Amino acid sequence: MELKAMNNLMTKFSNRKNQLYGEKEEGKKVFGLFCSFVPIELVLASNSIPVGLCGGKNDTIAIAEEDLPRNICPLVKSSYGFKKAKSCPYFEAADVVIGETTCDAKKKMFELLENLVNTHVMQLPHFKDEKSLNLWISEVEELKELIEKESGNTITEEALKEAVDKVNKMRKLFYKIYDLRANHPSPIKGSDTLKLFQFAYLLDINDTIEVLEELIPELEDRVNNKEGYTGKRILITGCPMVAGNTKIVDLIEECNGIVVGEESCTGTRQFENLVEGYTVKDLAERYFKIPCAVAYKNEERIKRIKELVKELNVDGVVYYTLQYCHTFNVEGAKIEKELKEENIPIIRIETDYSESDKEQLKTRLEAFIEMI
Amino acid sequence: MELKAMNNLMTKFSNRKNQLYGEKEEGKKVFGLFCSFVPIELVLASNSIPVGLCGGKNDTIAIAEEDLPRNICPLVKSSYGFKKAKSCPYFEAADVVIGETTCDAKKKMFELLENLVNTHVMQLPHFKDEKSLNLWISEVEELKELIEKESGNTITEEALKEAVDKVNKMRKLFYKIYDLRANHPSPIKGSDTLKLFQFAYLLDINDTIEVLEELIPELEDRVNNKEGYTGKRILITGCPMVAGNTKIVDLIEECNGIVVGEESCTGTRQFENLVEGYTVKDLAERYFKIPCAVAYKNEERIKRIKELVKELNVDGVVYYTLQYCHTFNVEGAKIEKELKEENIPIIRIETDYSESDKEQLKTRLEAFIEMI
Repeated sequence: MELKAMNNLMTKFSNRKNQLYGEKEEGKKVFGLFCSFVPIELVLASNSIPVGLCGGKNDTIAIAEEDLPRNICPLVKSSYGFKKAKSCPYFEAADVVIGETTCDAKKKMFELLENLVNTHVMQLPHFKDEKSLNLWISEVEELKELIEKESGNTITEEALKEAVDKVNKMRKLFYKIYDLRANHPSPIKGSDTLKLFQFAYLLDINDTIEVLEELIPELEDRVNNKEGYTGKRILITGCPMVAGNTKIVDLIEECNGIVVGEESCTGTRQFENLVEGYTVKDLAERYFKIPCAVAYKNEERIKRIKELVKELNVDGVVYYTLQYCHTFNVEGAKIEKELKEENIPIIRIETDYSESDKEQLKTRLEAFIEMI
Repeated sequence: MELKAMNNLMTKFSNRKNQLYGEKEEGKKVFGLFCSFVPIELVLASNSIPVGLCGGKNDTIAIAEEDLPRNICPLVKSSYGFKKAKSCPYFEAADVVIGETTCDAKKKMFELLENLVNTHVMQLPHFKDEKSLNLWISEVEELKELIEKESGNTITEEALKEAVDKVNKMRKLFYKIYDLRANHPSPIKGSDTLKLFQFAYLLDINDTIEVLEELIPELEDRVNNKEGYTGKRILITGCPMVAGNTKIVDLIEECNGIVVGEESCTGTRQFENLVEGYTVKDLAERYFKIPCAVAYKNEERIKRIKELVKELNVDGVVYYTLQYCHTFNVEGAKIEKELKEENIPIIRIETDYSESDKEQLKTRLEAFIEMI
């Protein structure tokens, strides 16, 4: 059962490196991004290229551990290792890297990273209150100035409007895909949607939109024909799974599970909430809403998880934590308690990028999926 | 070789619980504090009692791990465990607990703690810039309002002035003790100064001042008589060692080392920088200067470590990290590099509250102290 759009996605991904370096040679600046908190609209509006950075592979962890502690999250180590090893084409293309103070490990890693690449760090506040929003708005304003300076291009109102509309368009397409996944059977596998989310960070946004627009009618056809995947319906929630890391989704789908939703920065946190206006403040407000566990009293997230369980007809929740990610790990205890109170099955998984725990995880996931 | 002031300290510590509960019965409110970032002047000026909370013992970690992940810092787990087990008299006395968003684990732990005790969390910004200072000033202003509300007492200008002068007086006494420790031999052991710092969080400030005023002439006598401790002179830098945790200082002093300084929240970060004025803003500015590793680009700390190495005639630096404390751990890599470039010997130790690694640590510390 093949989806043409997924083949197109893979082709576009294969071509991305050449495309990116081609545009760079023509004079476009490349801004490397770590996190879904950075408003890519500003980069696009400066006629520059936003691109996600590698950080999903075990291979680059050893070189990172020369500088970083062993017991911090694999995503942070892998990212730093990719830059140190010069083995990520996007990292190597990046003229500037935009970081943000999400978690302790990333915040402090940037202090080392800036020795290897031009790095700008945004201050993401801890709180979700008005004062913090104002601080965040000023951080986004500063980012705009930085992007203008580094790209040499002024961000005009018109260009920003165009960028906002384009990124919103992509978001709406992802919303549509979520609507389609609510069906029984689900018209697409989680391992495919994960690739969509992962590559959306890497590809030219026009290409992502093209793939999504091709995919939606294919999925609609499947829904109309009641074709698709019928395993136990799983919502994944937790840490991002960046390109290279498909471990848990693969395991779930090997065990008669079908991932129908991702409450994740490779998932809902990537596309939910449109930018509602065309000012920098509108932009800042949309990104500030992202319900990441790094926030103190991140109440929106648990609310959203419960909604997704209903909307997507979920049978069970897999709570996914990257090892040593304190914020998602502690928040997991709270969420587990709340879901259990509503009789929503949940399993908490903490893992890294290695293969060593795969068999053990498979056994646990099999038992969980069988039970629900 | 006994110091009378240290006996007095131990007596005061033994009496503290009765004293505290006596004052509480008379109607004073108790504010429990976790961290050196909370301006105790405001608590004192409201005629209430500031008291540090327990968090230095292994005993309470198992009960904490019922709710918290295993792999977060022992200080955070131990603190939470003390409250859950109701085994810390200061925690039990506290009408309100004041937390702050220092690190990921603590920030998220407070979300669970507030189910057990009335908890107010201050937002400590990630950055050291003007915008962040302004946010911090408003957090301190809010704290003032909260303390007034919870204590039922207005914080008058006069009371605040008195509190500022009193806490500054204590700080100046600690500065004086540091001056005395610069001597060869050092007139006091590190295990004793650690107790001073630990108990300063717990005792009535008048009692701490009394002990310090008694201690200083005793130390001056020793300096004049060239009495004291002559081992290799060690500066400890890193995570706080709260009451109950004396593991590393004890090990160093068992291995012919003598701790002459602590760049720590149980050390210099506790007393350095006076409050220079009598407004809430002056208060906020002093606390904002604390060079804790949680800050992005915490440049002041490495500068201060290098100064302390000179001022205290240090032979070697022990960099102390509590397990899974990402900020101090990553900053350690940077500091190690910088100290080595200046030929200052440094050893990095990462440990928890258990006894299991004691022999191994002793072997490493012995080798380090012998080598320097």
